[in-house]
Amino acid sequence: MTLLERLGVSLPIVQAPMAGISTPELAASVSNAGGLGSIGVGATDPAGARALIEGVRARTDRPFNVNLFVHASARRDPAGEAAWLEALAPVFARYGTEPPARLRTLYKSFAEDDEMLAMLTELAPAVVSFHFGLPGAERIAALRSAGCVLLATATSLAEAEAIARAGLDAVVAQGWEAGGHRGVFDPEAADDRLGTMALTRLLVVRSGLPVIAAGAIMDGHAIAAALALGAAAAQLGTAFVACPESGADQAYRHALAGPAADHTVMTRAISGRPARCLKNRFTEWGEHVAVVPPGYPMTYDAGKALNAAANRAGESGFGAHWAGQGAPLARAMPAAELVTVLADECRAAARRG
Amino acid sequence: MTLLERLGVSLPIVQAPMAGISTPELAASVSNAGGLGSIGVGATDPAGARALIEGVRARTDRPFNVNLFVHASARRDPAGEAAWLEALAPVFARYGTEPPARLRTLYKSFAEDDEMLAMLTELAPAVVSFHFGLPGAERIAALRSAGCVLLATATSLAEAEAIARAGLDAVVAQGWEAGGHRGVFDPEAADDRLGTMALTRLLVVRSGLPVIAAGAIMDGHAIAAALALGAAAAQLGTAFVACPESGADQAYRHALAGPAADHTVMTRAISGRPARCLKNRFTEWGEHVAVVPPGYPMTYDAGKALNAAANRAGESGFGAHWAGQGAPLARAMPAAELVTVLADECRAAARRG
Repeated sequence: MTLLERLGVSLPIVQAPMAGISTPELAASVSNAGGLGSIGVGATDPAGARALIEGVRARTDRPFNVNLFVHASARRDPAGEAAWLEALAPVFARYGTEPPARLRTLYKSFAEDDEMLAMLTELAPAVVSFHFGLPGAERIAALRSAGCVLLATATSLAEAEAIARAGLDAVVAQGWEAGGHRGVFDPEAADDRLGTMALTRLLVVRSGLPVIAAGAIMDGHAIAAALALGAAAAQLGTAFVACPESGADQAYRHALAGPAADHTVMTRAISGRPARCLKNRFTEWGEHVAVVPPGYPMTYDAGKALNAAANRAGESGFGAHWAGQGAPLARAMPAAELVTVLADECRAAARRG
Repeated sequence: MTLLERLGVSLPIVQAPMAGISTPELAASVSNAGGLGSIGVGATDPAGARALIEGVRARTDRPFNVNLFVHASARRDPAGEAAWLEALAPVFARYGTEPPARLRTLYKSFAEDDEMLAMLTELAPAVVSFHFGLPGAERIAALRSAGCVLLATATSLAEAEAIARAGLDAVVAQGWEAGGHRGVFDPEAADDRLGTMALTRLLVVRSGLPVIAAGAIMDGHAIAAALALGAAAAQLGTAFVACPESGADQAYRHALAGPAADHTVMTRAISGRPARCLKNRFTEWGEHVAVVPPGYPMTYDAGKALNAAANRAGESGFGAHWAGQGAPLARAMPAAELVTVLADECRAAARRG
C-alpha cells in the first residue's frame, strides 16, 4: 500500500499543521479538495483540541491530520528567565508596559499529557503527527491501536532513524528553509541545517520510510520536484497561510504579501526554539540581543506578551509571522482552489521534466 | 534557442568548476559524455589558465566552461590580519611551525586582470562563468564579442537581477546547501541563505533568465527535481569530487567517503569568504575562534599555509575539503560513467513523477 493510500488521500499534498494558524475550515477545505488537511493542537489543551477535531469533522468526512508538540520537558532556569525579561524590558517600555513578572510553561508536551492521549484514542483521527520529538512507545501503541496513521518530523537522518525505529508510517523531512518551528528533537544539539533538497533525498535513500518533503514548497512545480526526489508527498505551510481560511491576522497577511516576504530569519528570540519568521522588529531585535533566550515554551510566553503589548500600541512588527524561504511565492486564494492549482501545476511540471 | 542548445550540450548537467579540484581530464570527460565540463581558473594566473584550457582542448572538441573569480578588490587591514595570524599561531605551533609573517593577496580578481581577459578573448572558450560578482560592462562585451556564452552565480534574487541587467545568458542559482565558496557578491552584506529549492524556483519565476540549479544535487533524481522546478540544467560539484579524474587528494577522498561526509559547515575561517566544507579540525577551530578573519583571499593564504604545515605533520584535518550538504550521497566512479548514470536516473525519476 502506498503512503497516499494509507493516508486515504488522492493528491500528494499535505497542508502543514501550523498550530495557531491552521483552522478547521482550512484543514477541511484541503481534505475535501483531495489533499491532507491538518490542524495543529500543540498550542491548546485537550478540550481545545477536541473542539478543533470536531470542527474539522463537521466540515469533512475525509481523513485529516492532527499534529502534536512532543518537546522534552521544559527546563526552568529562574536566573536565565529573569535576565531575558530584563533584556526585554526596554522593548516593553517602548509600548508603555512591562514584561510579565514570571514566565509560564505555556504548552504541555504530548509526551506527558495523558488527557490528550485519551481524547485522541477516543476520537481516533485518521492521521496523527509528531513535532519536536517522539512520545513513548506505549503512547505510539495506543494511537496505533486506535487506527491512526502516524507521522513525525525529522530534520536529520538520525532523527529519521529514530522515527523508523519507533515504527511510524512516514517521516516529514523538514528542510532548513521551512517556515515556523524547526522540528529538531534537541534544540541544544548541533544542527547541520540540511536544506529540503539535501534532506529529502538523503531520507529517501537512507531512512527506509516514505518521505513527505517540507520546506520552500510553494507551488506544483516544487511538489513535482519533491516527487522527483523520491518523496511520496509534499507538505506546504506558508503556501496556505495566505488562504482566507487560515487564522492569520491582517498584519501577518500584509507582511506575507509585501516586501517583508523577501527575507526570513531563523530565530529563537520569539519562542525559545529555532523557528523561521518573516524578518520583522522582533527578529531584528533577536539578532542583536546578547542574552540567551530561555527554553521553549517559556520564551514564547514573553514573546506573546510583547506582541500583544505592541499590537495595543499599533505596532505589528512583533508578531510570530512564521514563513519559509519560499514566502515571496505565496498566493492568496481559497484553499480548495489552491489545492487544485497545485495539483495542475504538479502534473504540468512532471510532464515537462 | 534553449539554454542547452546555446551551451552546445545534450544533457542538462554542468560539472561545477571547483578551482583547484577540477582538472582538464575531469572537464573533458564530462563534456565528452554530453554534459558541460568546467575548469576553475580563479586560483591560477593567465599562463596557468591557458594551460588548463589547452589541456581540456587536447582531450575534447566539445564545449566547456571556464570559471573566473570576480571578487571585489581585497581590502587590506594590517591590524586585523596580524590579529588573525596571532590567533592561528597556537595551531601552527601544534605542528611545529609558525604562521607566515604577513598575508599575501593570493588571487587576482578577473575584474582587474587585463592579461586574463586578453588570453580568454584569444582562446574564446565556448562558455565563461563568473563567481563572486560581475566584471565591468567592457569585459563582458569583449567576451561576448569573442563568442563566449556567459553565466554567473547568484545566491539571491537581487544578484540574479544584476546578472540579467548585465545581459548574461543564464544564472547559476547556488543554494545555501552548495559546497565550496558561496558566490555572494558582497560577503559583508546580509545573506538570506536561500536553499536550492527556494532559490531555484524564485529565480525561475522572477529573474527572467534561464536557471542552472546548484546545491545538494548528487544524483539524477535531484537533477529531475531541478528540472521540475523549471531549471534548464543542474550544476553538480561534490558529486564529481570523488571521480578519479578530479584533483582531490587522498585525505579529501577519504573524508568524503566516510562519516565525515555527514556534516558540513559554512565557514569563513579557511579563506575569508563563506564556503561550505566537510566538518574537520579547521572548521571546528573556526567555530570557536573569537577573531574575525580578514578578507578574501588573505585569509586563504594563512589557511593554505596551515594545511601545508599540518600535512607535513601527518594531519589532514585542515584541508579545504569543500563539499555540499549532499556529500553522504557522493559516489566514486569515473566521470563519464557518472554522467551516464546521472542521465539515466534523471530520465527514470522524470518518468516516475
